[in-house]
Amino acid sequence: MKVGIIGATGYGGLELIRFLHNHKEMAELHLFTSSEEGVSFSQKFGHLTHIVDHTLQKIDNDVLAELDVVFTSTPAGVASKLMPSLIGKGPKLIDLSGDFRLKDSALYEKWYNKPAADAKAVAQSVYGLTEWNATAVKDAALIANPGCYPTATLLSVLPLIKHKLIDPSYLIVDAKSGISGAGNKPSQGTHFSEANEGFSIYKTNEHQHIPEIEQAIKMFAGADATITFNTHLVPMTRGILTTAYAPVMPNVSEQQLYECLQATYKNHPFVRVVQDANAISTGRVKGSNYCDMFVKVDPRTNRATIVSVIDNLVKGAAGQAIQNMNVQFGFNQMTGLDVVPLFI
Amino acid sequence: MKVGIIGATGYGGLELIRFLHNHKEMAELHLFTSSEEGVSFSQKFGHLTHIVDHTLQKIDNDVLAELDVVFTSTPAGVASKLMPSLIGKGPKLIDLSGDFRLKDSALYEKWYNKPAADAKAVAQSVYGLTEWNATAVKDAALIANPGCYPTATLLSVLPLIKHKLIDPSYLIVDAKSGISGAGNKPSQGTHFSEANEGFSIYKTNEHQHIPEIEQAIKMFAGADATITFNTHLVPMTRGILTTAYAPVMPNVSEQQLYECLQATYKNHPFVRVVQDANAISTGRVKGSNYCDMFVKVDPRTNRATIVSVIDNLVKGAAGQAIQNMNVQFGFNQMTGLDVVPLFI
Amino acid sequence: MKVGIIGATGYGGLELIRFLHNHKEMAELHLFTSSEEGVSFSQKFGHLTHIVDHTLQKIDNDVLAELDVVFTSTPAGVASKLMPSLIGKGPKLIDLSGDFRLKDSALYEKWYNKPAADAKAVAQSVYGLTEWNATAVKDAALIANPGCYPTATLLSVLPLIKHKLIDPSYLIVDAKSGISGAGNKPSQGTHFSEANEGFSIYKTNEHQHIPEIEQAIKMFAGADATITFNTHLVPMTRGILTTAYAPVMPNVSEQQLYECLQATYKNHPFVRVVQDANAISTGRVKGSNYCDMFVKVDPRTNRATIVSVIDNLVKGAAGQAIQNMNVQFGFNQMTGLDVVPLFI
Amino acid sequence: MKVGIIGATGYGGLELIRFLHNHKEMAELHLFTSSEEGVSFSQKFGHLTHIVDHTLQKIDNDVLAELDVVFTSTPAGVASKLMPSLIGKGPKLIDLSGDFRLKDSALYEKWYNKPAADAKAVAQSVYGLTEWNATAVKDAALIANPGCYPTATLLSVLPLIKHKLIDPSYLIVDAKSGISGAGNKPSQGTHFSEANEGFSIYKTNEHQHIPEIEQAIKMFAGADATITFNTHLVPMTRGILTTAYAPVMPNVSEQQLYECLQATYKNHPFVRVVQDANAISTGRVKGSNYCDMFVKVDPRTNRATIVSVIDNLVKGAAGQAIQNMNVQFGFNQMTGLDVVPLFI
Repeated sequence: MKVGIIGATGYGGLELIRFLHNHKEMAELHLFTSSEEGVSFSQKFGHLTHIVDHTLQKIDNDVLAELDVVFTSTPAGVASKLMPSLIGKGPKLIDLSGDFRLKDSALYEKWYNKPAADAKAVAQSVYGLTEWNATAVKDAALIANPGCYPTATLLSVLPLIKHKLIDPSYLIVDAKSGISGAGNKPSQGTHFSEANEGFSIYKTNEHQHIPEIEQAIKMFAGADATITFNTHLVPMTRGILTTAYAPVMPNVSEQQLYECLQATYKNHPFVRVVQDANAISTGRVKGSNYCDMFVKVDPRTNRATIVSVIDNLVKGAAGQAIQNMNVQFGFNQMTGLDVVPLFI
Repeated sequence: MKVGIIGATGYGGLELIRFLHNHKEMAELHLFTSSEEGVSFSQKFGHLTHIVDHTLQKIDNDVLAELDVVFTSTPAGVASKLMPSLIGKGPKLIDLSGDFRLKDSALYEKWYNKPAADAKAVAQSVYGLTEWNATAVKDAALIANPGCYPTATLLSVLPLIKHKLIDPSYLIVDAKSGISGAGNKPSQGTHFSEANEGFSIYKTNEHQHIPEIEQAIKMFAGADATITFNTHLVPMTRGILTTAYAPVMPNVSEQQLYECLQATYKNHPFVRVVQDANAISTGRVKGSNYCDMFVKVDPRTNRATIVSVIDNLVKGAAGQAIQNMNVQFGFNQMTGLDVVPLFI
Repeated sequence: MKVGIIGATGYGGLELIRFLHNHKEMAELHLFTSSEEGVSFSQKFGHLTHIVDHTLQKIDNDVLAELDVVFTSTPAGVASKLMPSLIGKGPKLIDLSGDFRLKDSALYEKWYNKPAADAKAVAQSVYGLTEWNATAVKDAALIANPGCYPTATLLSVLPLIKHKLIDPSYLIVDAKSGISGAGNKPSQGTHFSEANEGFSIYKTNEHQHIPEIEQAIKMFAGADATITFNTHLVPMTRGILTTAYAPVMPNVSEQQLYECLQATYKNHPFVRVVQDANAISTGRVKGSNYCDMFVKVDPRTNRATIVSVIDNLVKGAAGQAIQNMNVQFGFNQMTGLDVVPLFI
Repeated sequence: MKVGIIGATGYGGLELIRFLHNHKEMAELHLFTSSEEGVSFSQKFGHLTHIVDHTLQKIDNDVLAELDVVFTSTPAGVASKLMPSLIGKGPKLIDLSGDFRLKDSALYEKWYNKPAADAKAVAQSVYGLTEWNATAVKDAALIANPGCYPTATLLSVLPLIKHKLIDPSYLIVDAKSGISGAGNKPSQGTHFSEANEGFSIYKTNEHQHIPEIEQAIKMFAGADATITFNTHLVPMTRGILTTAYAPVMPNVSEQQLYECLQATYKNHPFVRVVQDANAISTGRVKGSNYCDMFVKVDPRTNRATIVSVIDNLVKGAAGQAIQNMNVQFGFNQMTGLDVVPLFI
């Protein structure tokens, strides 16, 4: 496998490199840049010294066309320009940004405040929520890799909505993320002394992952949902925990919800359904591609609390992207991803 | 003022000491213990060396009776045994634990899993949510100081429920707390290497602050509410942020919600209603008695997001206790509490 | 007292504001800016809402001349331009930057890589290590407030060098600081996701505080020392711990070293000499003007380990500046600074 | 390979499991316990659910004798009782505790305050500082795996002492460790709210790693050294940084020191000698078996600053243990350890 990464200097790119390093099918790695051509990657990222001593290459379609797979891990609005001309030209394409996720261009332009990608390219793209879309992923030329919040949210609520066990019309998702989700660009809000020891809310009702979640609920569970969704910043580096709230359908028990999750994921190695709420922590999936989840019903209100944790940079980005690559190329889904979470 | 603290070695007790040190009306401080009589307080807590070099005293009702005010900052089930015999015997009593908060003994026993305090003492106690109950606090012999989560939650939702601007029948409160809320006793879950860099949920639907919140909604806003309430642990020491969700009543605007909060608290120095969601962070109230809040309405769902932050050890415990003491003794509410939040 | 702060938006400035807020002699506060005139201070720093709602003023010598004291908490090279023209014009001047600390201009220019301040102004300035220089501070028109690392280092080693108990010719100081010492400007190295969970060394042998420490050892202890001094970044916000190593002079015991420190500081309220190494932590001075220290002698090597902790933003900056102001104006040194460390 | 771990529930044991999971030669894993027989490992450590669902086994010499290798990752004083009877009985033995490191029993008993292991077993054991002792490790029946602080210290100072470039008679090592070094047992000092945001020194001049370092300096560099060595606790989970200070020998340049380190480690994949001090951070080796180091000479004092970083749980414990196992069994040293540091 010859693999290229555009946007390798971002955190998603760094995690792609970390996992691809131990992917037994990988033969060649190419790192592309729009602005730092010729820079030594390990001089920029000292932790990669003697491991990834590549030089950053100029983005060149002829070079890209020779590769087996190209990942774009770029800010919104970049992949939409780079990818369309490469579709069908050779490499499988996997975009970690949001540029190809929303099928409705108007929706993209409203929530991202940028021009949408070429409509034909968007139409061809496949939403890469691996556990729910492996068949389409297998043949996709271009994969729109899911966002971090949607991955955590959807994996836990989709089975329950699809099986009509909870009511999607009153779905509230309260999401919390480590600060790496804000990317690698320094800012006042991510300055250590100001972010440390502070917990905050951001983008109230305005996060661009909202239409992505709603689209996927429609696509995979067949339901229309207008969700309430808020995001918070946790003073830690990695991890997302989503707490979703929804009314339980009449005569449905907590046990049924649990069994629905268990049954849905029994053949999916990266999803772990747990019964003990104390077994849920972002720490337990840190550095890995696992998604842990559980569900509780409050008998006082008959509302369900559905909790899901992932590492935002792994299952929420680079890990799922490699999982999708594995599916596309017929490898075992765990290839290169079968690592033990760090926990400590 | 002669002040006594029972349970001074807990975090609530340490914060009482910190603020009382700068309270201009304080003349004498006595620290009481059930098990460490004779121990030098500053030997146990080095940060107090040369500041509070007191020796821990045995709990003795005759000594306590000579004081002007006695704070109990003890685990559940302790104040219920100590306080009743002191009511009306001299000192004003302020209990920081949950022992006198719930008027319904059965409810206490169910949620705390301990015997309830003497019913007469409970009946005499006054719930010390200062901004909402100052008149009763003024004459109270025994104050039940509110819990940390209820303080953050109630201050922000009570005005909106009372003025019928949101629907309390579908109130969901997603609460997050720094780890100091778990107290000073070491455990696996609060062991640095395991708590650090992890975000988790605990006591799903089972937190003992649930009936306290519901009782206060009834008491101060006249509404019956059966809430959904969950608590999460943030890898930081101090701070609580509550995100509450509720449907907005028909024809009510975001502006009305904001103005309701503003009007409610315009004469209350510790509550700050902000309009910018980015101005909300636990860091902005750290070490202080402030409660910052804001409200947004999502036009897509017509649901309100109501956010509130406090320092759990200050406005959520020791600070509010001193605020109540100030009211009881006719001091300015800010006496000893007029400090700038640390922010960094 | 009418007080002005130039550079209020930095962390030193914010801490000045925090402590001056509770300084009973303060009547008026003015905040000056070179670039943000007219900006509301509490809009910029939400934690000051309703507390310091000042508008930033233009720097104007006529306005400054009317004040009782002016603090400059500015980057290197700013106060050297602003202060000289104000000397003797009315206000007492206290500079928290390094611009007036080094008496030798060549040394300043070498270590700071900037033009030195006017030589006459430097000659008039008094080095404000309060515990060692109070007499000169009292009459000073311009105080050069010590650096954070020098404060921690000097307070602990000066007595031992002065009394010839340790050998200053082989003094090694290994210093560690929280990240707030790097200031409020975002950078890759202080970006949360990269600074968090990492411990690093910086400016090896090259920190500009080296000549400041050596100058003060000469000035206050009468010894020539060429020190080894290194600085490290700790993933926390506040605090400095310095570990100094030096040979103990012949026939000098650990007890003598301890007694020397004790005797030196017995009338200095902010210095606490402890005997238990486990009583030393930056956490025990957090948010306060205290400096805790201890000394141990290793009988195997006859070398002393001298440890000192301060809050870099308080005793290492704003706190000591106010302590100096108190001395200049004849107030009790503790005025406005008599607070309990946060510890948690 | 059939592998057994005694003490799997400690952090060293958990890291052994994490790396062995991806070790291609491993066929069978057995987890032994003295007190929790029958307990499901993944029920105790939720992050291992579906990955290591083993049941803890009773320690049984007959079972152990069937294995290829047995790791002991136990508190001091445990392996000294378990291991001797297994020497030569079948499995290779690798002890991660300090029980077999010190050749002088009197020294062990003095510094560990416990009875020393059987003298014959100690004599047979081989000190497993892999880069310096691979030949002996290859044939060892029992490996004494080095301590975390000694590993970081020795790798960086040994070449310079051996080649007589620095003077070991005045070697000072100022060491800093993340809190995972204190193990998994909760205590007041490692309680999150008290450890977080605090930096402290501990075991001043008294750490049991002192004689281990001195013995290795004698063994590998042929020099007698009585070192000054202190340890500090950093509020982060993983990582050790050691800053060593020593006089440079006459007419030796910084370049020579650098080249000595480079030459020593040019064929050792886990040691990276860097020239840029800013390229040194514990974050850059996090989760990996790398040791990064650099050396600077201060021309003012002619003293060297030698800095080294490792992940205390990996190169300082489990990683180096597996590296030793690889050498013993003739595998490539990197087998199972060739992972990219997490960095973020």
